[in-house]
Amino acid sequence: MIGKLNHVAIAVPDLEAAAKTYRETLGAKVSAPQPIPAHGVTVVFVELANTKVELLHPLGDKSTIQGFLDKNPSGGIHHICYEVKDILAAREQLKAAGARVLGDGEPKIGAHGNPVLFLHPKDFFGALVELEQA
Amino acid sequence: MIGKLNHVAIAVPDLEAAAKTYRETLGAKVSAPQPIPAHGVTVVFVELANTKVELLHPLGDKSTIQGFLDKNPSGGIHHICYEVKDILAAREQLKAAGARVLGDGEPKIGAHGNPVLFLHPKDFFGALVELEQA
Repeated sequence: MIGKLNHVAIAVPDLEAAAKTYRETLGAKVSAPQPIPAHGVTVVFVELANTKVELLHPLGDKSTIQGFLDKNPSGGIHHICYEVKDILAAREQLKAAGARVLGDGEPKIGAHGNPVLFLHPKDFFGALVELEQA
Repeated sequence: MIGKLNHVAIAVPDLEAAAKTYRETLGAKVSAPQPIPAHGVTVVFVELANTKVELLHPLGDKSTIQGFLDKNPSGGIHHICYEVKDILAAREQLKAAGARVLGDGEPKIGAHGNPVLFLHPKDFFGALVELEQA
């Protein structure tokens, strides 16, 4: 069912510093910060040869990223996103297997304009899994 | 400097269950468990279309993965591995930028037979970063 690894997301307490580290210290191609109010994040995209890393920073009062940073003040790897061809078919298959979909279970439009869902970390060995239709 | 995302590693408390979840629930191609005593882990490789996920379980008494699982009993995303062309050149560049290399600073042979180094999570916003010469 899952296809490519779409991205790995890292929550960071200082987006400018993190973008600089990835650009200058690690020598990667790094985007300008992009606010995504609907998801409560500002994102910097790190373009790698085969996939992306997304540096996430809280935006607004209701950001779920803030809760993560409260528990992990230095930041940390927040989630991993796999691509699926058909997100509704994937959701039904996962629910039939007993996996829990977060929120109201309906796909939202994600940072790349595609439908996404998040799966419960307890069902995936502590890793928060995002599925993106792509 | 960094090239492809080589893999994302997820530490899991039950390797058989995690392999089954990735194979059956997520429909991915999953290897047989491979013990790597030199790194204190048994690994299951999840082959995605553009990269790999590695499911890690402690092997032996001195596994650093055990410490991670003691803190995160359900498991969790453990590290992210970027490829570099020349690991010694990368190390010197990183040290010059103030990043700390873990252990004695000398590359070890990693799970894929290539030289690897680990970088201090505090220098990379809470994310443990592995570099692999590939």
